[in-house]
Amino acid sequence: MVKQERAVRTRNALIESAAVLFDRDGFEVASLSTISAREGVSSGALHFHFCNKAALADAVGREAALRLEVITGREAGGALQVLIDATHALVRALDHDAVLRAGFGLSDGAGLRVMWQQWVEDVLRRAEGEGALARGRSVGDAVTAVVAVTAGLETLGRQDPQWLSQTPLTRFWAQLLPRLAAASCLESLVASGTCTPSAPAAAVVSAPH
Amino acid sequence: MVKQERAVRTRNALIESAAVLFDRDGFEVASLSTISAREGVSSGALHFHFCNKAALADAVGREAALRLEVITGREAGGALQVLIDATHALVRALDHDAVLRAGFGLSDGAGLRVMWQQWVEDVLRRAEGEGALARGRSVGDAVTAVVAVTAGLETLGRQDPQWLSQTPLTRFWAQLLPRLAAASCLESLVASGTCTPSAPAAAVVSAPH
Repeated sequence: MVKQERAVRTRNALIESAAVLFDRDGFEVASLSTISAREGVSSGALHFHFCNKAALADAVGREAALRLEVITGREAGGALQVLIDATHALVRALDHDAVLRAGFGLSDGAGLRVMWQQWVEDVLRRAEGEGALARGRSVGDAVTAVVAVTAGLETLGRQDPQWLSQTPLTRFWAQLLPRLAAASCLESLVASGTCTPSAPAAAVVSAPH
Repeated sequence: MVKQERAVRTRNALIESAAVLFDRDGFEVASLSTISAREGVSSGALHFHFCNKAALADAVGREAALRLEVITGREAGGALQVLIDATHALVRALDHDAVLRAGFGLSDGAGLRVMWQQWVEDVLRRAEGEGALARGRSVGDAVTAVVAVTAGLETLGRQDPQWLSQTPLTRFWAQLLPRLAAASCLESLVASGTCTPSAPAAAVVSAPH
């Protein structure tokens, strides 16, 4: 393995390790020495990549944003089904991806939430443009409900992973869609999502900087 | 002031102070000395009431449970409106009541969530018994949506208090009710709630033990 490649692997392993410990113990409690020890990396190697814990948290946040972009980037098909599928992909990812979970949990997780909310609004406006929303429905109302429910499943799932299974979100969509979607679209929409479930977690791909 | 009364006041002030600091800094970071200093209480007086930080967190959790019981205890009127009003009261309380917010945020906040979920289910079953739900509606589906949305508003509100204003929750109910409620009840339901808003925070009333 060339030196550069090894450095990237070490850096990515440290981001994963930090995410697991931030998520489990909280940012304040997780220590740099525990984070590096978990990956068998020396303290010197850690400091080569990250000057302090805040820099590591920043890297976790940026990696989480990349993974959220992967989730919101699958845009084949009608906008409303794209949204349903993305909410399922997000909730599935929150169940197994510590980087994404830590990203939302960090104090600057607000950035990630704003990104998600903005995307939900964009895709609902596209659905409106496609004529997929029932007449008189407000995009803003639907954004509020979708963003609140996904944040709620994230929070509840930290204490009981059942909330991150497919059922609760499917139940939510089954209640919302009959009022939100145009009658002509309703039959073709799948509340439980059309994505292939449980794709392996996206690899950490960001380069060192 | 008699000695007993002063002891109760000190104990309650310590619970409030601990809640504010657990909520702001997290349980691990908040220190007993900061908690007592914030109220001008000596370290000795703190240890007279609470042997350690876990005991203090336990007291915060129990006080939060009492406050949640006050919110779910206003049961005048139809069950569905009682539920709508209680969700508004909870979200309003999360905006100004650090004890309730800290209670949900603590690692054993799961107990509080289960209490809330159980009550939401009970009151929806009562609504069903009253014939207030539309035919074929599932109580379980509605419980999922209500519990997820309130948890979501709690989480989002920690970063942006706008989520704890009346509007987002009203928007949620306005979307859910036309499908959930029986047509005969729908017109009389008020999605924005019928409670008097902004009642002052319940005083800490639990006695020392």
